[in-house]
Amino acid sequence: MILNHRFTLVRRPRGMPVAADFALVEGPVPELREGEVLVRNHYASLDPAIRGWLDAAPSYMPPVPIGEAVRATTVGVVAASRDPAFAQGQWVVGLNAIEGYSLVRPGGFMGPIDAEAVPSVTNYLSVLGAVGLTAYFGLTDLGRPKAGQTVLVSGAAGAVGSLVGQIARLMGARAVGIAGGAAKCARVVEHYGFDAAIDYRGRSVDELAAAIREVAPGGVDVVFENVGGDVLDAALMCLNDRARVVLCGLIAEYNRTEGPLGARNLWQLIVHSASIHGLLIRDYLPRFGEGAAAMAGWVRERRLVFDEHVDIGIENALPAFLRLFAGTNEGKMILKLA
Amino acid sequence: MILNHRFTLVRRPRGMPVAADFALVEGPVPELREGEVLVRNHYASLDPAIRGWLDAAPSYMPPVPIGEAVRATTVGVVAASRDPAFAQGQWVVGLNAIEGYSLVRPGGFMGPIDAEAVPSVTNYLSVLGAVGLTAYFGLTDLGRPKAGQTVLVSGAAGAVGSLVGQIARLMGARAVGIAGGAAKCARVVEHYGFDAAIDYRGRSVDELAAAIREVAPGGVDVVFENVGGDVLDAALMCLNDRARVVLCGLIAEYNRTEGPLGARNLWQLIVHSASIHGLLIRDYLPRFGEGAAAMAGWVRERRLVFDEHVDIGIENALPAFLRLFAGTNEGKMILKLA
Repeated sequence: MILNHRFTLVRRPRGMPVAADFALVEGPVPELREGEVLVRNHYASLDPAIRGWLDAAPSYMPPVPIGEAVRATTVGVVAASRDPAFAQGQWVVGLNAIEGYSLVRPGGFMGPIDAEAVPSVTNYLSVLGAVGLTAYFGLTDLGRPKAGQTVLVSGAAGAVGSLVGQIARLMGARAVGIAGGAAKCARVVEHYGFDAAIDYRGRSVDELAAAIREVAPGGVDVVFENVGGDVLDAALMCLNDRARVVLCGLIAEYNRTEGPLGARNLWQLIVHSASIHGLLIRDYLPRFGEGAAAMAGWVRERRLVFDEHVDIGIENALPAFLRLFAGTNEGKMILKLA
Repeated sequence: MILNHRFTLVRRPRGMPVAADFALVEGPVPELREGEVLVRNHYASLDPAIRGWLDAAPSYMPPVPIGEAVRATTVGVVAASRDPAFAQGQWVVGLNAIEGYSLVRPGGFMGPIDAEAVPSVTNYLSVLGAVGLTAYFGLTDLGRPKAGQTVLVSGAAGAVGSLVGQIARLMGARAVGIAGGAAKCARVVEHYGFDAAIDYRGRSVDELAAAIREVAPGGVDVVFENVGGDVLDAALMCLNDRARVVLCGLIAEYNRTEGPLGARNLWQLIVHSASIHGLLIRDYLPRFGEGAAAMAGWVRERRLVFDEHVDIGIENALPAFLRLFAGTNEGKMILKLA
């Protein structure tokens, strides 16, 4: 009998998740039925979006049920299969959970990956996975900067943000990043090649807006928003006419207990005929091949710098996840399970 | 010498405008120079947007200067002209001010109107003017409801909102209105023909969202937003996938002194791949002819119900303007000047 270790939800977190919200549960792997596949998870992708799935609020996916393993994208190897489409030993990526083994039922999202083609299979959770596709489609389909225009990226040192700025530059646009702290700002410019970076820490909305205008005196044409709150409010004060805000995430909101901060400068959308577009990468499923090919091409040509921050062991699932909110990860946050 | 009476700005209002913010000033009409036109204003359009022009904040138009007459669209008659394009006696519409006579310099926005073709020249400030064009382009170009879809309109008893619901129905969509008070809600359904109306008064965001879902159990595909604050937050909780929010106005915000309310449920944009689009009617200038023809056609065919609320006399400019925020006008708010 194979023993499974699962990182399960015990109760819905209030604000920042704490240890008592979860449990590490040991149990048997169920018998495979016809059409099912058992995946041994090697790596789990830790994303801010997981925080939303822990809440009971209606969303684009059902909440993680109490007592169930916390949902996450994983890469792993087919350990057993009763689905002719998947052979034992095949590397796969899929929407599974933070657990040693995931049982994939027919209709579940899972696809084969080519482990030989990449330096590390973890790349399918970062630059070649949802993170890369989010940056790619968010910018090329919703943001659509023209050459010479200015793209403002919040969370610029993060997994998605760092790629967005680089793709903006590959498209001929100027990339301005917003990040927390001097070290991250230096990283955004020196490591990821943004044209400029601004530290949001210790700045009011007005001060942050003034800092943006200083490095983008011609205004901002595209905002790629990962943060929300004051950072979004400042960005809204710097829009050019017909600017587009790509709303990818609102990490400043996810753990608030006093209710959301919201966007208080929405009137700027009217003043500048500007727009905000919610980005859900799932919508681009029919075009994943196109996006993956573009990202893989840039990676091959070494035109994209990307980083992965791998913490080790399911027992570290919570502290690794919390890095996303503390900002102590450098690169795509990944948990190594096996 | 012709005496002019002008409703001028004395100081920038803080919150709801008060009498001391304005003055009624008497003075001579200046001599016409080459290329200039003198318009005797008969009617001024009182719009929520005027409130924004009184503030010092950067906007799509320069703030009304202190000491100057308050900017407004007017219809009037050319009293004197040194521009060969405009003959004395010609009816015109233009962006002028709340004053008996406006001096129009070359390059100012002014166009001839056909006073014979309409029941009242005031129609060029309502259904055939910016109000009608705002409803038309906001809905047909940004909202784009398909037949059978649901359009939610806030400020549904207002000048723009009442037209939006009717155009939605002409497009084959369902129209649900939000308005303040039982009398307005009855008016929205019985007089303007919306499918349903909801009273926002006395309802929390959650209660308002529940009330919307009750009359729109299939969700909302297009929101035409005139109000902002709690009303927008409730609408955001009822979006269908790929819903579009047309942001026309934020009247709940315009007189706040405690800072803007903002939109606190922006995460719903991500969850539903939805978008918000700021609407500035000026952008549609090249297509005004198309919009005006469509509106005029529906008016001729008696397929649009519209109302005008005309208060009389420049001395009533402020109380007439404040009706917009108290909600005591029934139809497009217009001030008769001559």
